[in-house]
Amino acid sequence: MFDFDTPVSRRHTDSLKWDLEDCRYPMWVADMDFAAAPPIRAALEAKLATGVYGYQLVPADFAPAIADWWRTRHGWAVDPSWVVFCTGIVPAITTLVQCLTEMDDGVVMLTPVYDIFYHSVENMGRHVLECPLSYDGVYSIDWVGLESQLARPEATLFILCNPHNPTGQVWTENDLTSIGNLCQKYGVTVVSDEIHCDLTIPSVDYFPYGRTPLGDRAVVCVSASKAFNLAGLQGAAVIVPDADLHRRVERALNAHEVAEPNVLATVGTIAAFREGAAWLDELRAYLYRNRLSLADYLARELPEAHVVDQQATYLMWVDMSRLVSDTRELCDYLRSEHGVWVTAGAQYRGNGGIFVRINVACPRAHLLDGLRAFVEGTRRYLSRS
Amino acid sequence: MFDFDTPVSRRHTDSLKWDLEDCRYPMWVADMDFAAAPPIRAALEAKLATGVYGYQLVPADFAPAIADWWRTRHGWAVDPSWVVFCTGIVPAITTLVQCLTEMDDGVVMLTPVYDIFYHSVENMGRHVLECPLSYDGVYSIDWVGLESQLARPEATLFILCNPHNPTGQVWTENDLTSIGNLCQKYGVTVVSDEIHCDLTIPSVDYFPYGRTPLGDRAVVCVSASKAFNLAGLQGAAVIVPDADLHRRVERALNAHEVAEPNVLATVGTIAAFREGAAWLDELRAYLYRNRLSLADYLARELPEAHVVDQQATYLMWVDMSRLVSDTRELCDYLRSEHGVWVTAGAQYRGNGGIFVRINVACPRAHLLDGLRAFVEGTRRYLSRS
Repeated sequence: MFDFDTPVSRRHTDSLKWDLEDCRYPMWVADMDFAAAPPIRAALEAKLATGVYGYQLVPADFAPAIADWWRTRHGWAVDPSWVVFCTGIVPAITTLVQCLTEMDDGVVMLTPVYDIFYHSVENMGRHVLECPLSYDGVYSIDWVGLESQLARPEATLFILCNPHNPTGQVWTENDLTSIGNLCQKYGVTVVSDEIHCDLTIPSVDYFPYGRTPLGDRAVVCVSASKAFNLAGLQGAAVIVPDADLHRRVERALNAHEVAEPNVLATVGTIAAFREGAAWLDELRAYLYRNRLSLADYLARELPEAHVVDQQATYLMWVDMSRLVSDTRELCDYLRSEHGVWVTAGAQYRGNGGIFVRINVACPRAHLLDGLRAFVEGTRRYLSRS
Repeated sequence: MFDFDTPVSRRHTDSLKWDLEDCRYPMWVADMDFAAAPPIRAALEAKLATGVYGYQLVPADFAPAIADWWRTRHGWAVDPSWVVFCTGIVPAITTLVQCLTEMDDGVVMLTPVYDIFYHSVENMGRHVLECPLSYDGVYSIDWVGLESQLARPEATLFILCNPHNPTGQVWTENDLTSIGNLCQKYGVTVVSDEIHCDLTIPSVDYFPYGRTPLGDRAVVCVSASKAFNLAGLQGAAVIVPDADLHRRVERALNAHEVAEPNVLATVGTIAAFREGAAWLDELRAYLYRNRLSLADYLARELPEAHVVDQQATYLMWVDMSRLVSDTRELCDYLRSEHGVWVTAGAQYRGNGGIFVRINVACPRAHLLDGLRAFVEGTRRYLSRS
């Protein structure tokens, strides 16, 4: 029903992904080379047609649209009163770090993880307490290591990534419940970034942290921006069930000036969650076929690469350890010499150094061209060194 | 050439001004009841038509468009390298307070002044050091008082409002130079909010703080949002000539997550400064006639009110001291009983309590209806008490 195959030209549109550098196959930052869903575009155009672009309120349907989506789609009974608008999940997390921790506190994370979390913590004068995920081709939580980090006196906040970027894991109900129990044991507040939750592979759903027994003590960050490709609209929401915590968080978001919507932010979000489901399900099927295409292509053409088994995100996590001990130099070479921009995993810390992260959210023909250049470039790099 | 007379319906558009409360004459918050200029609307529509709303870069022409505007229009030779994008002037000031002062420091302001400055300072754990403007029907700076505040050991930042909101003064070159000298004498950094600078009355220009001898040590905040009625686009810029200060400020804006543009912010700003001059000049003439209409109407119908002589902003500052000693109760009454929402001056501190601030940026017929309700309501309030 929807066309994901026809390329949309993004070059010279001030796209971060395409225009930061002139690169033939930009497969790095997490946005997609697909136009927004038709009902979203229609809603944005209608809003723009009002012609007056003054100060905006958060529309009355913003919180209900989010609550309904999570209830019907993910089985989490969100009350609309828990929802606070925010300009993005990163602004939310930066604010939460300031609001929920003190200077020099420690913030625990399972690593490798989305690198901007580190910036939010370290830029605000707090420390990252890494708990590296165990890895033997498949990732799992090192529970002993996690408890020892949470038990540290300076640990006050745990940032969960659910599903996990960049490893693509969908945490189980058991995983999440155990995390909650451990965090409660040591008085550590849980912030859960669930931005990738609607990008699971077909027939798999994620488990909202809010559905666990201690989920109502957490701060859960959600957005339509990743699944519906609306990062440039700067719309997100923070869901805080606990009333005391809610007041603190809402005030902090306001004080830090990340709680006011621009003219399009809430409009895009509401249209996505009210009218975007059909588009999203087709997208997920398309991305899944892209995922399989990548796995298939690499299995044939670069069998030394190991594609980690993932149930979510459009960001493939590829273990290159049989080829290189750290992917940074390879990635620099691919970018400068072969026009292929994939992300070197070291920036995600943990054991990320042996991985590349490849964004497959683009028309399949472009993906295959990019993969061809990736494999050819890698071969040349290896024969060169 | 442009039509400012035909009303644009803003009710039920999630407008803060019109929809926060159902009020017949909302003449409070500073946005205008006029559609954006045609070239701005065209640029925004073209941007939206790209269909892909991913992460945005600041376009290459953003800083030059701002530099050219200030050079040709206001005689300030801004170098594009000084310009940093920001999501708004309030987010910028909140960030500057954190970046340029320490906890418990004092921030000096000439009062009454835009109330959100107080929030930016106090929410971040700093103190406001008020220097009340002298007033005898006309405002002027109390230089002795200003020096005594700047000399306090905790004073590290001075927030200038140029032109001044809500009193509508356009500070002279002499005023600004003296402020700069005093601030330098006491090691106080100057932040100048120049958001109202393009809303001077016809034939009057403002004097950019950056043109004063010490202007290159300051941080100057500008935006197209006030003059071109684009508050909902969340686009602004911080101009920092000094290289060391520039690096610090740019990093702080990024760390606090207010330095990334949404899809429309920079597009609207560039269109305004590149193609909006003709519209702006007609707007200024229209607003000036609104200002005269208000003065004329009040002189006839409520001669006890004194309209302060102002050279900028569309926010009339009306001294009600011959009628009431504080306008808060009157304003509450006007809003609840007569559907007229003007701002009680107490929130701007200083001697604001005896004033009302009236936003006249609306079609003239609506303004006159609102003023009629304002005067009638005030008369009833006075006869009631």
